[in-house]
Amino acid sequence: MTTKAVNQLTQQGQAAKASARQLARLSARVRNQALLNIAQALEQEQAPVLSGNQQDCRAAQAEGMDAAMLDRLLLTPERLADMARDVRNVAALPDPLGESFDQSTLANGLRIGKRRVPLGVVGSIYESRPNVTVDIAALCLKSGNACLLRGGKESLRTNTALVALVRRAIAQAGAPAEAVQFVDNPDRRLVEAMLGMKEYINLLIPRGGVELIRFVAEHATMPVVTGGIGVCHTYVDRSADLEMATRIVFNAKVQRPTVCNALDTVLIHAEAAAAVLPRMAQELIQAGVELHCDHRALSILGPNAGPKVLAATEEDWGKEFLALIAAVKVVDSLDEALQHIETYGSGHSEAIVTEDYSAAQRFLEEVDAAAVYVNASTRFTDGSQFGLGAEVGISTQKFHARGPMGLRELTSYKWVIMGAGQIRE
Amino acid sequence: MTTKAVNQLTQQGQAAKASARQLARLSARVRNQALLNIAQALEQEQAPVLSGNQQDCRAAQAEGMDAAMLDRLLLTPERLADMARDVRNVAALPDPLGESFDQSTLANGLRIGKRRVPLGVVGSIYESRPNVTVDIAALCLKSGNACLLRGGKESLRTNTALVALVRRAIAQAGAPAEAVQFVDNPDRRLVEAMLGMKEYINLLIPRGGVELIRFVAEHATMPVVTGGIGVCHTYVDRSADLEMATRIVFNAKVQRPTVCNALDTVLIHAEAAAAVLPRMAQELIQAGVELHCDHRALSILGPNAGPKVLAATEEDWGKEFLALIAAVKVVDSLDEALQHIETYGSGHSEAIVTEDYSAAQRFLEEVDAAAVYVNASTRFTDGSQFGLGAEVGISTQKFHARGPMGLRELTSYKWVIMGAGQIRE
Repeated sequence: MTTKAVNQLTQQGQAAKASARQLARLSARVRNQALLNIAQALEQEQAPVLSGNQQDCRAAQAEGMDAAMLDRLLLTPERLADMARDVRNVAALPDPLGESFDQSTLANGLRIGKRRVPLGVVGSIYESRPNVTVDIAALCLKSGNACLLRGGKESLRTNTALVALVRRAIAQAGAPAEAVQFVDNPDRRLVEAMLGMKEYINLLIPRGGVELIRFVAEHATMPVVTGGIGVCHTYVDRSADLEMATRIVFNAKVQRPTVCNALDTVLIHAEAAAAVLPRMAQELIQAGVELHCDHRALSILGPNAGPKVLAATEEDWGKEFLALIAAVKVVDSLDEALQHIETYGSGHSEAIVTEDYSAAQRFLEEVDAAAVYVNASTRFTDGSQFGLGAEVGISTQKFHARGPMGLRELTSYKWVIMGAGQIRE
Repeated sequence: MTTKAVNQLTQQGQAAKASARQLARLSARVRNQALLNIAQALEQEQAPVLSGNQQDCRAAQAEGMDAAMLDRLLLTPERLADMARDVRNVAALPDPLGESFDQSTLANGLRIGKRRVPLGVVGSIYESRPNVTVDIAALCLKSGNACLLRGGKESLRTNTALVALVRRAIAQAGAPAEAVQFVDNPDRRLVEAMLGMKEYINLLIPRGGVELIRFVAEHATMPVVTGGIGVCHTYVDRSADLEMATRIVFNAKVQRPTVCNALDTVLIHAEAAAAVLPRMAQELIQAGVELHCDHRALSILGPNAGPKVLAATEEDWGKEFLALIAAVKVVDSLDEALQHIETYGSGHSEAIVTEDYSAAQRFLEEVDAAAVYVNASTRFTDGSQFGLGAEVGISTQKFHARGPMGLRELTSYKWVIMGAGQIRE
């Protein structure tokens, strides 16, 4: 890779940082106007975007991209209209900036408090979905952050056209177009260069598959939103309402199996297993789910359980299936369930189904995860379900933010101190 | 370095992580009892600590350690009693854990909210001051975190005795002694190994000189509290009360020049400079301060200003002096002052002295620093001054915590969701 490409990336980082200072001082009115302009442009200036997208799709097809990936890459007038609607929704959210909090007056008369401010520059590295370009740009604008975007090379023409549209719309609102920077060089080594730019990027948001997220988390020198990996358990306690347990497990596994908050492993108390597992397994199998069972679950389901019931291997525990597959294990106690979750969980979303007060309290207290549930489906772990308005990502870290991150999690604060000549004794 | 040493460090990390789970479940009563036991032991079991410290001091003296460093290393019965008092003060602070917040009931009846929990394991790498050992251990215990400590090799015998005392006191309270881990191998390469242990350490707190902090910030794979470096400006505006300005600048520079929130550079508006600078310079010089002045300040002070007035070089701007030295620059406007601070500041503490409402508002809004002041000394940026009770460090980052960090900043949260069988549609 040429030094020139890295130099250009550095210049983009500098431009983003400089415009972040300007952006931080804009009123919510101007930031929202920029968003409304973007939405309007997405509806009224579709031609260059659709044309770039057609070229990307043709090239991807020629290179043998599979149908699912191609569908993610494809934009249509309707999909652009959906993106416009999403941007208007972000514009309509309350302003995350400017809030003053933790205010007090010290004994010496100093008035101190915190004021919410943007983080600065948000970097994002993502794969082929071009809607991420507009999504991250909109969340950053709303929260007063500049952004530096690096999308997949398959969507390069689409993203270039989208970013041009976004920047025009921002400038028309009187905001700095430089606040949205796009890396249009598809060289993968620029990703590594970007991960080293902690001087210019305050937070990095990877969007895409597990491999990308792991790579970014491992090599980034700045803070990263490292969510996206969810090995989620639902534990059916001895005292569970068995119909409720079946409904919750079914929902957590089947409603949308390809996402991080979907169920991966069902743990069932031995005293409930014989009563609940046959019916639960039958419903799951009818929905197309393959069950990887430990030997006790296997013996309950019997030798004629059919081709969808397999013996689990050690690899099944702690695996994020992202598919219609569930691991099933019979445990002898709440303690064994807690131990299994501690060993194999990824700290994302964990649930217990129980009617036992103390078991519920222990589960909530002792499970170390971003979201812990009693008697509900883990599928709820989601920014919009949790009422955050917009979802920036789901953090499985403990620092700064945990679980679904909204606009507020794209902010920091400064201490503001107003005096009348106070000095320290 | 032997693999054995690294393996042992890894085992300590694992032990810390395991005991962090136990610690997180202890009541505040048990955690506070552990702290009170530590305080009592610091008063009543001094012999082994003082004996180890004498050996450390003799060895350090033999190796030619300077007097200031030796003094930092030295423990006396009185200093141990002071440490005991500090630990009792931490015990008396409100419990930072268990608080529930951001609670609501969703439209589907799910009750959701956040519950404050410990971060997990806090690592600390520090230099020769043995009081840091007890300080970090106490802050971590109070906040339910385990810790992995690595002190300077000069204080190895002292720290070993202190950690033994701390662990006995913890065990006597019924808490896990393993929650305080101490790296007793002085090999410096273990520092690098520790910086790579993000699987076992959730937050790293370096304590010591600028070099140590920079090294840790650059090489750590986990979040770091990267405070400690403060290039602090005080801008005397055109409209400043000149007597107040002189008092604030004097206090910020002279009251304790060796700390991060002490003044480094005075910026003075050209219209105020002739009236304020001569008297301000005279007071500073009388207190032993050396002034590194730009040419305009020099010409105001005149050719007979004496040996303490020197011409500034480019290196003086943005330098943290940590000594009785101040850089002085005359500027033509608030904008020039803001630009200078943006270019040379370290994002720690910045002040304006002004009677102009709009200038004050602009300064508070536009300066991007952890603490921004109007008409007060930057020396107030401090956990205990800000009412946080205990100070974990001062962050100049924007992620997680900014400015003085208290016990709450050693915590995270989990989302707790209580349902009645809800599933996602």
